[in-house]
Amino acid sequence: VKLDVVFTPAEADAAKLAGRTVVVIDVLRATSTIVEALANGARAVIPVDTVERAVRTASEIGRGDTLLCGERGSKLIEGFHLGNSPLEFTAEHVAGKTLVMTTTNGTMALLAAGAARRCVLGAFLNATAVTAALAEEDDAVLLCAGREGRFALEDAVCAGWIGRRMAQRGRTRATDSARAAMRLASRLGRPPLRFLRRTAGGAQLRRLGLGRDVEFCGAIDRHTSVPELRDRRAVL
Amino acid sequence: VKLDVVFTPAEADAAKLAGRTVVVIDVLRATSTIVEALANGARAVIPVDTVERAVRTASEIGRGDTLLCGERGSKLIEGFHLGNSPLEFTAEHVAGKTLVMTTTNGTMALLAAGAARRCVLGAFLNATAVTAALAEEDDAVLLCAGREGRFALEDAVCAGWIGRRMAQRGRTRATDSARAAMRLASRLGRPPLRFLRRTAGGAQLRRLGLGRDVEFCGAIDRHTSVPELRDRRAVL
Repeated sequence: VKLDVVFTPAEADAAKLAGRTVVVIDVLRATSTIVEALANGARAVIPVDTVERAVRTASEIGRGDTLLCGERGSKLIEGFHLGNSPLEFTAEHVAGKTLVMTTTNGTMALLAAGAARRCVLGAFLNATAVTAALAEEDDAVLLCAGREGRFALEDAVCAGWIGRRMAQRGRTRATDSARAAMRLASRLGRPPLRFLRRTAGGAQLRRLGLGRDVEFCGAIDRHTSVPELRDRRAVL
Repeated sequence: VKLDVVFTPAEADAAKLAGRTVVVIDVLRATSTIVEALANGARAVIPVDTVERAVRTASEIGRGDTLLCGERGSKLIEGFHLGNSPLEFTAEHVAGKTLVMTTTNGTMALLAAGAARRCVLGAFLNATAVTAALAEEDDAVLLCAGREGRFALEDAVCAGWIGRRMAQRGRTRATDSARAAMRLASRLGRPPLRFLRRTAGGAQLRRLGLGRDVEFCGAIDRHTSVPELRDRRAVL
């Protein structure tokens, strides 16, 4: 399999995602949260870029079974039902609901992946399941959401972790960035993922009292489900 | 010292270079070649973005002591005096000359660094000298040129190598990307730098019969000089 890793959405154009299979990774926290939400019975998660568009999209769908979710600066958005903490997305809250979500990094990466032939959502929570979902693919791009346009270590290590699993399954041709990610994962990707606490994203969440989110997002293979983007909605 | 690494010029805006000290790194081959050229007595190297601008700039300066240099697709540009191979930039060819240079990745990164307060040029060829040149700085950004808008492993490892040297000199606060680069360098940055041959850039040069360039650019500390960009010219 030909394996590429893109460390920031800013590189997505240069990486030529059109027509390819893309895995979007935002460990802290958007793809972790979406994996958790769908595993807990949410019907779909619709990523949108702005708060205004989230409100408009939700009202178009009809508010009855719709929840507004997301964050700005890691915090709940005023008037929204849920933030971006995976711990909030329990079956009690989300089962049967359609979630409209806007976050700083993850939803941007999901929108950047719009040109992909197939787009799946990955995190440590479903990492092994992602490698299984890619088993039939000849070519995969792991697209890291990054953080405010910059490299995020947790996404790179998660991409490298998935890449290493794929390399165990069969011969892999890796780009420079995929090789780099796999090397990072070989040192940092061993559970428990203590390095997460020291990443820029992990440290910010801990400062905001969201340390439990960091621990939660570092649980490898909590789920076997792999959300895919279909018609701009993340579904199982 | 606060240490940041930027893996691609695409991230330069997000990294907020304005007013900071930036080290531009394009191991294969632009900054290696510029370090070599200035060490061999070139008066200045002027990076420009296009072939047309190179020709215009050279004719404005006066062709007597000016050389047109650079590459497209790693190859010599028609009508130019020199390509982008450091082996061409001997004292015989370049001493006393002003070089106008356009390359695919490196000169783009140098132009992206235009907002910096101070911009120095780094490569393996002058890596230890770069750390010495930064000894008085509280804050440094190592800006990798990358390759066609993408992550390039050789630039990341060179940045990590410089970062590790800086960390040996004193307490360093590293961003996620700086930590990643330093980890990559701890594995790959040991001379001789065999990994260079297997990078995307190294492999392309070898395919073009330029394997000697790859070896040359992997020589650590060949020079003690650190070019700086002054008034848009790289000088010693």
